[in-house]
Order: sequence, then structure tokens, then C-alpha cells
Amino acid sequence: MNRVQVDELEGFCLAALEKCGVGKDDAAKTVQVLLTTDLWGVHTHGIKALRGYAKRLRGGGLNPQGKPKVVAEGLSWARVDGGSSLAMVTGLFAMEKAMEKARQTGVAVATVFNSCHFGAAGYYTHWAARHGFLGMAVANDVPSVGMPGACGPLLGTNPFAFSAPAADGKPMNLDFATSVVAGGKVYRLSREGKPTPEGWLVDLQGQPTRDPSLYPDRASILPMAGHKGYGLCLLVETLSGVLTGARMREKVGSWMKDPPEQPTGHGHFFLAIHAETICPDFGKRAAELSAGLRSFPVASGASPMLIPGDLERANETRARAEGLDLPLDVKESLAGLAEDLGLKAPRGCL
Amino acid sequence: MNRVQVDELEGFCLAALEKCGVGKDDAAKTVQVLLTTDLWGVHTHGIKALRGYAKRLRGGGLNPQGKPKVVAEGLSWARVDGGSSLAMVTGLFAMEKAMEKARQTGVAVATVFNSCHFGAAGYYTHWAARHGFLGMAVANDVPSVGMPGACGPLLGTNPFAFSAPAADGKPMNLDFATSVVAGGKVYRLSREGKPTPEGWLVDLQGQPTRDPSLYPDRASILPMAGHKGYGLCLLVETLSGVLTGARMREKVGSWMKDPPEQPTGHGHFFLAIHAETICPDFGKRAAELSAGLRSFPVASGASPMLIPGDLERANETRARAEGLDLPLDVKESLAGLAEDLGLKAPRGCL
Repeated sequence: MNRVQVDELEGFCLAALEKCGVGKDDAAKTVQVLLTTDLWGVHTHGIKALRGYAKRLRGGGLNPQGKPKVVAEGLSWARVDGGSSLAMVTGLFAMEKAMEKARQTGVAVATVFNSCHFGAAGYYTHWAARHGFLGMAVANDVPSVGMPGACGPLLGTNPFAFSAPAADGKPMNLDFATSVVAGGKVYRLSREGKPTPEGWLVDLQGQPTRDPSLYPDRASILPMAGHKGYGLCLLVETLSGVLTGARMREKVGSWMKDPPEQPTGHGHFFLAIHAETICPDFGKRAAELSAGLRSFPVASGASPMLIPGDLERANETRARAEGLDLPLDVKESLAGLAEDLGLKAPRGCL
Repeated sequence: MNRVQVDELEGFCLAALEKCGVGKDDAAKTVQVLLTTDLWGVHTHGIKALRGYAKRLRGGGLNPQGKPKVVAEGLSWARVDGGSSLAMVTGLFAMEKAMEKARQTGVAVATVFNSCHFGAAGYYTHWAARHGFLGMAVANDVPSVGMPGACGPLLGTNPFAFSAPAADGKPMNLDFATSVVAGGKVYRLSREGKPTPEGWLVDLQGQPTRDPSLYPDRASILPMAGHKGYGLCLLVETLSGVLTGARMREKVGSWMKDPPEQPTGHGHFFLAIHAETICPDFGKRAAELSAGLRSFPVASGASPMLIPGDLERANETRARAEGLDLPLDVKESLAGLAEDLGLKAPRGCL
């Protein structure tokens, strides 16, 4: 195993962003979001994306000097123009804004338009939970999710994240795509020449297919849990697309494929609830709920019950101690980014 | 087909509640919630439950004269003691409270403890949407949902509802159990002596079973969508159980099975976002999103794409015109209720 040291990765990512014209503070925030996601083991949404973001920063679709700003607000809400900044900067700004207001009133939301792909939704909610808030974050994306019978993709994989603090220092951290599976898993099977399991894909006539090579241009992923997931996907579009004033559905651009000079126009929605304002012993009660589940009797040989976030916390502890075991596609992306920018790739990524 | 007239059902249900000592206003609210749910075609959560509620009202587990009240509040939140009132009364009270505060601050939540089964979560969010709010409602319940490997049920079927207004007068109305299937469907297969599909049930050793007769005492339902659904189920428990100060997990009573003199201690959570405060053209944008999906091209012979709530709206229109086509189990429950209380059952329910 060829583990990459976290410090070295951090230094490289910061240097890459600064080379693209991003200021030190914004670069630090962006790397904090993306690298933590890798530490959690969620490599699909971490520093692998930096190469694509860098292309847009240099192309103009993302503004390296852009700053999110509040364009309208009330006691418990703020409407944020992302200014085509890096969406990790905007996401943290908006979640912090919701938290600031919720500290005063109990609960608040921040909506964001004019943004881009913001990495893992769960980073922002985890940030909120670490500061004593229940957090929710959702975002829309370019359509890739279809339904049986529909001749094409209807909605994005529209992630949904929710976190809650706990007195044991182990917040619940739930983060999932509302599609049955992440696009990355379809790409992997395509590369390996293997069929997808039944129930993952439909073609452009809305008929089932198991051919991963059709995705994303000639096939769509199905929602998780059928109609329930379609409904959740639509909930996310309503909060992050409709309520925010952002682009909706097919008007959202692809941060990976569209010309890098074009803004993508993603929307995000953040909710923060100040736990102890509403329930003074929330942290203790949350820890009690978690403890009851973690210690629930399991069959001989079965794994113990977990709380969402437990696996990621264990991954982070290990990665900080031993370095990160990055998948090949992440290493390739970092090596490519190094080449794009004339930087030296981190050791282990060559 | 033996359709029952809506007016006649309404009169019967009101009489039944008044016979149990419930005041006219509270009876009217309760019947409004339950009967509308039947009009939508969601017969598992409508007036069928009235017989069980009536038993608790007469047993003392529900207080016919109980009144929900706010016991603590801030600018954007209220903590409600349900007072063991009928949970439909409490649910409407709490959602109205969240709406009232959200009208001032943009967004607000109401938490409820000391409540019971509140019918369909989507009724409360639909109510909010009809008044210009995005609404969310969740509730916990007695555990019946397990996970592979877990020796027993971990959490309730914990429903999740979300609604949003739209300028076309057709609000989105999403309401689902976070379990893979509602318990009622397992009971039906059990009555019919048929096995359940794979992926519905696990036994008390957390092993798959297809024997519906084991449910609920010797089998649990699985969450929808595996770990994602488990996470959602836990989100619901966190909002409705932890944050509210209500009973959690196995401490929640069964409104159907526990002795009728015992309160069940359910918790609920309601969120209201005043749409036009945050996004002045929300209704128009929501209608645009819906129209794009409803008119999305579908394969020859396929049904058009729907928005959650479309089917229920069509069902309601038909039922108001032609009467309700109640399933046998609902009719039997109403006939039983009539017998319990010495009332005449509605025509068609004998």
C-alpha cells in the first residue's frame, strides 16, 4: 500500500488553487472541505475534483476572486449570490450565515444561487453539527436521473445531507445521493466492462438497461427507492433550485463537461437549527439514541449497528495517523492537475 | 362498487368523536385530517384509525379534553406539549404555530412531545403549502424497522413529509414511510397467505424471511433503500424524538396494541418556510418545475411523469363527486366503531 501523507496533499492542493488565482483564505477553506472528504474515505467528492475546478477557475466559469454575498435577508433567512466563487467557499459562507442567524432565532436557512458543484453536502452539515447545530444541506445538479418510461434524465443526483451534534462528540452525519447509486460506480463498471445490476439504469426510452457504457449520454440512473427517491430528488430541486432563484433542471450546467468559461449556476440550500436553544439536553439525548443503536444486539458474526458518520470518523482517524490510501483515479487526477499547472505532484501520485 | 357518501362519513366520524367526549372544534379538525387522507386514497392513514383512537379516548391514554400548548418559544421556534390530545389536533396546532412564526421571520419550527399517532404526515405539510409555506413534518413511532443482522426492530416506520406551494394550485405533496413498505402491506399478504417479496422482512436474528405472519412480533420491516433509508429513519427519530423531548425508540408506545389507558408519548417535528419571503416568485418557479416534469416526453404507452400529490388530488376530486370507495378493512373498522359506541354505521359500512 502506498499511502500519501495528508500534509503533503494539503500543501499541493493549496499551491494548485493559489496558482489559479485563488486567495490564501479561500484556498484554505476549499482544501479543508475537499481533503476532509477524502479523509472520510469519500474519494468521489474530494480532491479528485480539484482538476476540474482548476480548469473552470482558469477558464472563467469560476471566478478565483469571486466572493459570495448576501443579497437579501431577514431574521431567519439569507439569500446568497455565490458570485461564481468556488462553491466550497460559498457553501461554508452560507452555512455559517444560517448558523449565525439560528443562534439568535433558533432556526434559519440560507439559499444560494450562482454557484457550482460544492463537493460533499455532508461537509457543511458536519461543520454545523460540530458547532452545536442540526444542519441540512442539499444541492441540485445537471440532470442524470431518470424514471421508468421517461425519455431522458429528469433531475440531478441531487444530494441530501443531515447532521446532528451529540454529547459523545460523535455527530450523526448522513449524506447520500437521491439516485440509486452514484455515477462514479457506473463509470467504474463501464471501465471494467461489467454489466450494472438490475434497477440501476434506464435508456433514453425509459427502458431498463444493464449497459454502463450508455451512461450518461444514452442512459440515466434511477432514483433510490423508486417513487420515494424521485420525490426526495424533487424535494432537493425545490429547495436548492426553486427557492434559491438558481438554475433548475436542464439549465444547470455540468461542472465536468461544459466549456470551462461557462458558469454552471448550481443552487444550494442550507438549514441550521440551534439544538440547545430548542432542547437544552439535546446533545445528551442524541448520544443516548446513538448509544442504544450502537450497542443493539446483533446476530453472531454480524457487524454492530452504526450511526451515519461512524465509518467516516474511523477512516479519518486512520488517515491522519497513517496517510491516505488514495484510489488510482484520484492519484491520476492529482498528477494531471500537477501537469496542467506545472507543479510537482505529491509523492505517491506520479 | 359501493361508494360511501363523504357527508355521511363526516357526520358519523364527528358523532363518534363527540360520543368519546371530544369537543366540536377538535372533532372537526380530527375528521378534516383523517377524512381528507381517505379522499386522497391513503386509506391506511385515514378514518380506519378512528376506532383505535376512540378506544384510547375512552381508556384515558388520549385525553378528549386535552389541549396542546406552547411551553417554550423563541422568534422562530416553539416547543409544544401535546397534552395527550388527539394528535391531529396537536399536529395542526403545531404546524400553524410554525407558520405563524415563519410569516414573521421566514422560517420556523415547532416540536411536539406527549402526543400520539397523527395520521398522515403529508396532511400537515399540504396544509402549510395551501397557505404559501414549504412544509416538512416527521414523526417517530414504536419500533418495527430492523436492519440485516440486528436482533429486533431498531426504529419506527418514521414517516417523512414535504410539501411546497405552486402558482398552478397544485402543490407538491410528498409523504412516505422510511421503511421499504408500510406495515399494512405485510398484514395483507399475511391474511392472503402469500409470501412477502425478498427484501421486505428480517427475523429476530436479522436474517431475511418471507413469512409475513412473523410480523411484527417476530420480524421487522427493512428500511427503504438500505443504509440510506436507515439514515433517513434516524433523521426522523432525531428531529421528532430527540429534539422534541418526546419518548424515543422502544419507549414510544403502540397506539394500536398498548393498553388504552396508557399515553404513547409520540413526538413530531414541523418546519415551515414562508416561500415568498425568501423567493418572491417561488410559486411561479415551482409551477414551472412541475410543468416541465409533467410534460416530459415519455415512451409510447408509458404514463406521464407525475408530481407527488397529483394522484391524491385526482382521487379527491373523484371521491367528492362520486363518494368514497372504501376498502373492506376500513368499512369493518367503521362498523366496529359504530358497535363500540352504539351508533348507526354509515350506509355501505354494515
